[in-house]
Amino acid sequence: MTSYLSSPSLSGSPNSATHSSTTAVHFQKVGIVGCGLMGGSFALAIKKANIASHVVGFSQSITSVNKALQLGAIDSAANSLLELAKQCDLILLAVPVAATQKTLEAILPGLQKHAFIMDVGSTKLDVCEAAELALGDSYSQFLPCHPIAGRERAGIEHSCVDLYENCKVILCPHSSTPESIVLKAQSLWQTLGSQIVFMQAQEHDEIYATVSHLPHLLAFAYINSILNAPKTEKNFALAGTGFRDFSRIAGSDPTMWRDILIANQKQVLQSLDAFSIELEKLKQMVAKADGTQLSQAISQASNARGKWQLNRSH
Amino acid sequence: MTSYLSSPSLSGSPNSATHSSTTAVHFQKVGIVGCGLMGGSFALAIKKANIASHVVGFSQSITSVNKALQLGAIDSAANSLLELAKQCDLILLAVPVAATQKTLEAILPGLQKHAFIMDVGSTKLDVCEAAELALGDSYSQFLPCHPIAGRERAGIEHSCVDLYENCKVILCPHSSTPESIVLKAQSLWQTLGSQIVFMQAQEHDEIYATVSHLPHLLAFAYINSILNAPKTEKNFALAGTGFRDFSRIAGSDPTMWRDILIANQKQVLQSLDAFSIELEKLKQMVAKADGTQLSQAISQASNARGKWQLNRSH
Repeated sequence: MTSYLSSPSLSGSPNSATHSSTTAVHFQKVGIVGCGLMGGSFALAIKKANIASHVVGFSQSITSVNKALQLGAIDSAANSLLELAKQCDLILLAVPVAATQKTLEAILPGLQKHAFIMDVGSTKLDVCEAAELALGDSYSQFLPCHPIAGRERAGIEHSCVDLYENCKVILCPHSSTPESIVLKAQSLWQTLGSQIVFMQAQEHDEIYATVSHLPHLLAFAYINSILNAPKTEKNFALAGTGFRDFSRIAGSDPTMWRDILIANQKQVLQSLDAFSIELEKLKQMVAKADGTQLSQAISQASNARGKWQLNRSH
Repeated sequence: MTSYLSSPSLSGSPNSATHSSTTAVHFQKVGIVGCGLMGGSFALAIKKANIASHVVGFSQSITSVNKALQLGAIDSAANSLLELAKQCDLILLAVPVAATQKTLEAILPGLQKHAFIMDVGSTKLDVCEAAELALGDSYSQFLPCHPIAGRERAGIEHSCVDLYENCKVILCPHSSTPESIVLKAQSLWQTLGSQIVFMQAQEHDEIYATVSHLPHLLAFAYINSILNAPKTEKNFALAGTGFRDFSRIAGSDPTMWRDILIANQKQVLQSLDAFSIELEKLKQMVAKADGTQLSQAISQASNARGKWQLNRSH
């Protein structure tokens, strides 16, 4: 599958497979495993786009399944993963990454020969390993996938039909992934308005450790430092918009982020080390009141962030 | 002035002096020193609210003064600080905090007996010290002030008439501030739609080190860690909304932030130490893959951040 991996160069602006390759895609029955924000939004979006004739849901929480039915995100509920798997030609795995192996093991006995499975996990090396262990020869039917979408509020009740519009979707096809599955997945996500980016699982985990997992870790630590210091209430009461935006991701789902940080442990700690070096440099400049160095260091960051914003708005 | 300082209790939700105390306030001539985002937005707002009959501007940058005239933020431009001071019954100091003393020294010989000066600086202890040194006996005419408003883009061209609406404005009257000045300032900011909070300069600097200055330092270090690591372009290209919000403040003005971090050095380093302790705890939990501890630590942060958001929306 190296043709996918090498095709979109990533120099300069964000890249994606071209939309011209989009072809109509349709599934008889799509199964949503995990009726939360990601699964619920996917269900709503594929129904709106007429990608599926029927959507069947499964969740360990009966409350979530009922909400999904009420919201019209799913047409029916399966009593088990086996029952769901038997019916579906596409299964979306939208469970915490640590639950991947166990969930796929329960799906395997019912998995149809023509079906395939995608996940939405924020880490990919651990998910690939878990999927290979669970699925064995059927690992070829598993396409590792990570839509760069989300909200700090979890749960089916926060689902929205356009969650995947204009977002990047990372696909990490592996050596046994058939081209037909990759093309179907590509067509599906593009129909939902997403931009496809192909990448190796290893590179995915390195990049997202830096641009997503580390900021979450820092934001959690930052909020905890306010909680464990004096004047917590006053600090919170007087915080402004800088605080609001900087700390937004600290409100993220604890179970999901516990799993991500542990799953991507090695890369996260590496990114944290790189951050700590830069933080120590700035700390020394502040401690020495070295205005010249500090100004240069802040300018470097400020210019880069300004350029990023500019590229993004174009 | 302890009556101001003690009046608004800060327990529970954000507090402010009550709006019922608002009385009409009007100035013949208001001087804006520093025609940037803060000064320009103040000028636009007081003109809209008919608080001033005439607004006169001064800036070291002729380009900024001309833009302020073009935008209609100021009615006329002064050739010197002395000339500006002679005309005005209110002067707003909107220059980098490090320029406070020099600017006030140039204003003093022209300062009218009935006039008063407010600043908009993000630090207060250093500004008070500089103002006292510069103004001597006239220090009573200086009311330290910090509107919790701003944008990551500096410059008069980013001014907006409603920058101060619904924002908190910290007033730090000192032992020699007459009540009449405090009441005028209170009335002015409340007319602009701001919420007044009274506070000692020392406490102000402690709180804003934690809720504003430290996040900026962390965001600068974070962006620099991406710039100084491999795959900078790919990392930037693949970053999502979490990155966007977390790093927004890294795009802030370098000169302004160099001055703030150095001016509030002691408190910033103290807040940084508190943060580093929490970060180290999380790092150890990740390194040991201690899911139980990590989950607890993240839950603590996530709950607190969720509660903050909830209080804010009410």
